Order: sequence, then C-alpha cells, then structure tokens
Amino acid sequence: MLEDSSNHTYFGIKARWIYTANKHQELLQNHTVFIKNRLIEKIIPSDSSSQSDIIDLGESILTPGLINMHTHSAMTFLKGIADDQKLSDWLEQSIWPNEAKYLSHDLVYEASQLACLEMISSGVTTFNDMYFYPEATAKAAIKFGLRANIGLIFIDFKTNYANDFSDYFDKGFAFRDHFRDESLISTSLAPHAPYTVSDESFKKIRTYADQLGLNIHCHLHETQWEIDESLKKFGIRPIDRLHKLGILGPDFMGVHCVHLNESDLRLIESNQINIISCPSSNLKLASGIPPVNSMIKRGKLVTLGTDGSASNNKLSVLDDLKLFSLLQRNDGKEHEFLKSQDLMDMVTINAAESLDLDDEIGSIELGKKADLVAFDLSNIFTQPVYDPLSSLIYSGSRDNVQHVWVDGELKFKNKQLVNIADAESVIEKVKLWKNKIQ
Amino acid sequence: MLEDSSNHTYFGIKARWIYTANKHQELLQNHTVFIKNRLIEKIIPSDSSSQSDIIDLGESILTPGLINMHTHSAMTFLKGIADDQKLSDWLEQSIWPNEAKYLSHDLVYEASQLACLEMISSGVTTFNDMYFYPEATAKAAIKFGLRANIGLIFIDFKTNYANDFSDYFDKGFAFRDHFRDESLISTSLAPHAPYTVSDESFKKIRTYADQLGLNIHCHLHETQWEIDESLKKFGIRPIDRLHKLGILGPDFMGVHCVHLNESDLRLIESNQINIISCPSSNLKLASGIPPVNSMIKRGKLVTLGTDGSASNNKLSVLDDLKLFSLLQRNDGKEHEFLKSQDLMDMVTINAAESLDLDDEIGSIELGKKADLVAFDLSNIFTQPVYDPLSSLIYSGSRDNVQHVWVDGELKFKNKQLVNIADAESVIEKVKLWKNKIQ
Repeated sequence: MLEDSSNHTYFGIKARWIYTANKHQELLQNHTVFIKNRLIEKIIPSDSSSQSDIIDLGESILTPGLINMHTHSAMTFLKGIADDQKLSDWLEQSIWPNEAKYLSHDLVYEASQLACLEMISSGVTTFNDMYFYPEATAKAAIKFGLRANIGLIFIDFKTNYANDFSDYFDKGFAFRDHFRDESLISTSLAPHAPYTVSDESFKKIRTYADQLGLNIHCHLHETQWEIDESLKKFGIRPIDRLHKLGILGPDFMGVHCVHLNESDLRLIESNQINIISCPSSNLKLASGIPPVNSMIKRGKLVTLGTDGSASNNKLSVLDDLKLFSLLQRNDGKEHEFLKSQDLMDMVTINAAESLDLDDEIGSIELGKKADLVAFDLSNIFTQPVYDPLSSLIYSGSRDNVQHVWVDGELKFKNKQLVNIADAESVIEKVKLWKNKIQ
Repeated sequence: MLEDSSNHTYFGIKARWIYTANKHQELLQNHTVFIKNRLIEKIIPSDSSSQSDIIDLGESILTPGLINMHTHSAMTFLKGIADDQKLSDWLEQSIWPNEAKYLSHDLVYEASQLACLEMISSGVTTFNDMYFYPEATAKAAIKFGLRANIGLIFIDFKTNYANDFSDYFDKGFAFRDHFRDESLISTSLAPHAPYTVSDESFKKIRTYADQLGLNIHCHLHETQWEIDESLKKFGIRPIDRLHKLGILGPDFMGVHCVHLNESDLRLIESNQINIISCPSSNLKLASGIPPVNSMIKRGKLVTLGTDGSASNNKLSVLDDLKLFSLLQRNDGKEHEFLKSQDLMDMVTINAAESLDLDDEIGSIELGKKADLVAFDLSNIFTQPVYDPLSSLIYSGSRDNVQHVWVDGELKFKNKQLVNIADAESVIEKVKLWKNKIQ
C-alpha cells in the first residue's frame, strides 16, 4: 500500500502516536492523518478509518517534519577535515584557504545535494541556509524536493561569489526573482555577522527587510573574540551596535548567542529577537557553552540549527535537541526542565513561526502542508516507551527515522531514500572535491 | 561468505581501514585480519590475501570492540521514565520507589538482556557493570555472548537483593565462584559510593582487593551534594576520606569525578586513579559538566561509560565519546585537542587496561581475542572521509555499526543482530515490566 501511496493524491497515515505541535501540544494516540493534494485534510481516530491507501506505521510516532534553522549546506565538502586541530589552525589552515580556492557554483550545488540527502535521512524537511551561491543550494533543495529558506548573503569583502555590497545585492535579488514561484523556496536577508558587515550595509538591509517583508538571518555573539573586536572597533558590544542601527526586531533571527550578559539579554527581550541555537557547533568550535536557560526565558522564540557539516559534523537536528536539553540542566540550579513537547516545538512549530511559514508548515493541523516524519520506536534503542516524545528525544537517533514526506511526497521509506533521482552519484561527486583538497 | 564464517574456526576480515589501538596507534589501510580459534592470528596487506573465507567490509573501518566502562544494564526497565522531571522528583518519585518495589533476579535478568542487545547493536563488546543481582546480569551477558566485568556490589543498607555487608559479601563471592570458569565474565569489587558505604566496609573491600587482585569500581564525586554531605558528616571531602582509608590506588576506578578541586586532582594523580567519565549522564542528571581537560592531564587512564539507561538514555559509547571530545574544547583556552586516535584509545585499549584485560582485548594485535567492530563509513552521513576515525567519532552514530564479533563470534551482521537466541521476546518482556510500573 505504501508502495503506491506517494503517487496518489489521497492517502492516510495511521500512527500509534501523533505529536501535533498544535497550540494545545496535543499528543494523539491511534489516529490517522489523511493527506489530500499535499495538504492535511483530516485527522481522525484510527478505529473509524477503513479506507484503502492507509499506511500503517506500527509502533511509531508521527511528527511535523523537523526544521534545521541554521546550516551552510554546501560545507559538507569540508566535513571531517582537521577535526582535532585547534580552532585557529582549523580556520586558517583548513577552512578559509579551501573555501577561497574551491568555492564555485558547481561545488555548492554538488555539496548541498549531499547535505539535502543527509537532512532527509535525519528527518529534516525544511532547512534555513546561509552561504555563497544561494541559487546553487536552492537548486539542490528543489532537485530532491526539500523545503528551504535561503539566505541572501551579504558580507563586506570580496569572495569568489561576489565583489562588494552591490554585487551581493544584485546577485541575491536576481536569485530571489528567479525562484519566486518555487513553492519549496523562501528567502531571508542574511548579513553574515556584525564583524563582517558595515554599518552602512546593515542600514540598507533593514530598509530592504521592511520594504519586502523579509526576515533577517545573522550570526550574533558566537565568540568572545567577536565581542572584544567590536568593543575595540566600535566601543560597544555587537548587539548594542545592531540595536543602534535599528536592525533588531521580531523579524531578526540571531544565530548562536553564546555570549550574553544581562544587558544583551535585555536587548534580546525588548526587541523580541528570535534565537537560533547551535549547541553542537558551539562546543565543537570551542565558542563556549550556550546559556540555554537564559535563551529560553528571554528570547522570543528559541529554535535549533546544526550549523554546517564542517563544524558539527552531523546535520541531525534531533542530536542537537538532546544536547540542548542536556545543557539546560547544568546551570547549578534545581529547576523544572522543558517538557518533551516544548522541546519538539522548538524544532517544528516555533521554527516555522520564526520563518513566517507557520501558516503552511510546523504542525499537524488541518490545511497545513504535509511535511511529516514517522519515527519508529519499536526497536531495542527506544523500548520500552513510557513517553513517546521522550523516547524519541533522549533515546532516539537518525536511525529511528522511518518515513519522511515533504509537501505530501514520500522521500524516505522504510529507512531508505526513495523517489530521489541520481542519489548514488551525489557521494561520488563530493568525493572528487575531497580528493582535490586532500 | 560472511554467511558461513561465524561457524568457522578460521576466517579473514578485509578492511579499507583498521585502527589497531596498538602502542604506535597504527591506522592500517587495505589490510586483512585473520582470526583462528577466536584469536587474531595475523594482520597482512590485503593484496597478498587470496584465501577463501575472507569477509570484505568495503569502505569500512575495523576497530577493537568498544568497551562501556560504566553501566547499570538492568536499568533499561526505567529507560525514558520521567525524563523531564527535575532531579529530586525523578529520583524520589520515579527511580527509587520503582527499584524498591520491583527489583528481583528476574527483572535484572530480563532488563539486562535488552541492554546487551542495545550494546551489541551500538558496537560495544565489553561492559563494566554495577548493580544488584550481579549473577542475573552475568547470565544475560553469557546468553548473548557479550563480555562483561561484573561488579560485586556493596552498599550499607538493605535492598531487595541483600540485607547487610556480610550478605552482600556472601552473595557477591558466591556469584564469583559460580562464574569463575566463564571466559566472558570477570569481576571487580563495587562499593556503590562514599555516601552509601561505611569506613569499615571500605577497609574490608581494600583487604579483599589486595588478597584477590580485584579492581575496585566506585562512584566518586558525582555531585556537589555528595561532597557537601561528606564535609558535614566526616569533615573532609569524599576522595580525602577514601585516601585516608587506603582505598585509592592504580586498581581503583572512580566513576564520574565531576566535581574536582586542585586538592582532589592531586590525590587522583598521586594515587594513579583511573577515571571513568560519563558525560551524557552527568549532563542529564544535572550533576555538572565534567572537567574533561583536568581528567586527561591528571587521571592515570581516562575511559568512558554510558551509565544506565535511566540516566542517558543511550548505551552508545560512541555518543559519549563525541560529547567528551566536545567538552574538552570549552575551558576558555586555545589548546590542542585529543587526536582521534587518543579518543578511540579511551574506549578500547585504555578501557581494557583499566580492567586488567589488556592482555586479552582492547587492540587489534596478534594473539588477542577477536572482539571487533566494523563501522561502515560509505554512507551519506560519514562521507567524504578525510580521516576515518574522525568521520566515525564526529559524524558517526550507532547506525554506522556494520558487523560485531565478540570472542571471534559474529553477533551483528549487515546492521542486524545475528546468532542471538530469543532476541524477539526480549523487548516484550521489558514491556511487561513497564506496563506494571506505568
């Protein structure tokens, strides 16, 4: 039955558990979700459903597709390079020189495809990207039918991709115009970081954001170095500077936010900033341990990103969700922890809301697009099940991903990629880049 | 060929990469390991090997079997119970009452079996256990052919298992005598912790350790609470007390060691204590973030444990290895990190040495027992491969485990358990316990 259902415009998914991520954080038991023309048409108790074309998941939980809120997809080509070098050597000897030497449209297109396949296989149905050659990443997402919010990158120096602000601007907006009708692709403005973007550029970005209704996706307070440099150059901390430039607001997504003092937190709160935390990357790059409890209390919405493959090295939001939850426990205080529903909301509905896509995706509710993941909980790793979400978050891993649908289309079935053209050659192409580099 | 090889007394394993964990930390390429009568007979370049009965792993790395240095296997029956409760509620409402109510030989036997299957599937070939009813855990390990070092637990209060020190003693040593000829089973003395064992009992344990040549396996400085209580009751820190009682030494394995001041570290160094770190558990139970860099510098050998399923909730040493490595990067200092070989040694040869089993296991060297794991690195998660150990540690997960051999016997083949009797019913039995509890 599953075999055929992806080509039908109407099918049902029968699940032992469904986490809806709706406003009431409902966890349904023994319900069936019906999909009609890519949209969720109805959700009813399984007992009363005897139609054909019902996929029975068995002892699994169906959730909204996971949303990876910060990555540089194309960086899979540097995955695992020099993992045990100290940070300055890693950047100066391994990352920057190779980016400068090899970055091109083709590299970004090919390496992003590997990231897309890894994300689908990890239960991710939408990713929020920031990198050079955004059109190449968008093409990779479309090729494999993954949903992507692509950042139009701005950085105040010359790269292989563009020469100066107006060149980044022209290329970014040409990309946006070209992909305007692609339903899987949306865009944000992506000034790289306070230390790589000038005051003048930030002001222009605020103007475009307001005029076009676009969100802003920007690294912020990732390292103590960044803060020290800003104090030297501008006399104020990066977040203060962005505040004075008028960049901050509910449409601003600040990535990392590892180093936050009380004054920073007040600005985050008063400006209703969305925080995207990338705990694995912060630890891997020795940036620091993100202050997760402060984030939860003071950010408008807190969501999670894996960051790029060079700095994690897994594009598995589920792993970062467990790590984030573990880190909330170590502030030396006895307190309540986020419930498993709250944690799941971070990587589903809250992420959709941060991207202004919550009318379309992020929860299992009538009329929403069918971006869905079934996680198998029947195996030795996740049994016994006291609480299915808790089993998923604390005992689960990417190997629990059973099926993945994006926009109603089956992309991953019985733990294998399906309906994916040309998947075999993707690894081979990235290997060729690796061979050139090594 | 693989199909039959487990029943042969002679077979070869041909690997793209072999990490030997020998003294030179050799990483061999394109070599074949030959196994004769459960022992490693020779390791030669693959080109010259054309014998039959060669298992070709493809693009995989063969490593010594992973060693889980601290777990309470039977606690799988509480895996996932109340994960989001604050610590005191979790212990007082969920863990202790259920242990008091349900603990029995049968429960430990059945729940340990689930742990054994999870460990085999996660690349673990040896585990170091501490729990009640040690004979039940040993029987589970033997049933599935897993190697285990079983702690003879001592705790100075009555439990379902035993009444007082002499009862724990009698039962522990009866178990040891009974299993003396089981080649898969070895034993340690396992006084639970400084806060649950009296001075008098610790002194007796030191005497037995010396007389019988047994190691000591004991929780130590897991929480700040434990240290505060010791200061109140004894006027000194737990490690000071153990030092004065003569318990510490190169045969002592201290589990956790989360809270260490300079004086504690001096005792660890001067007594040549082995440290077993359980970073996931420390974070999950809000014990604190283990001081990994101090451990590495000051411990005799540093190894890793998953802890029990109630406090992790994965029995995957590989996950804890990544977390340990991430935590070494966040002491605010720019320094060299452990190389991937050093990390792998922690969970293989160093662990074997801590258990005094390094003559038999822990490395791929001539004459050692064939406890081996093949990790598949060919998939989208671990490609491209710049460094196979780095790919395994940072991008790998339990789903990369391809084959597992314990004592020359194939237990896991092509990502599935094999030659395991009765595996299907294991989950069902633990589910019945869960149903009683929930």
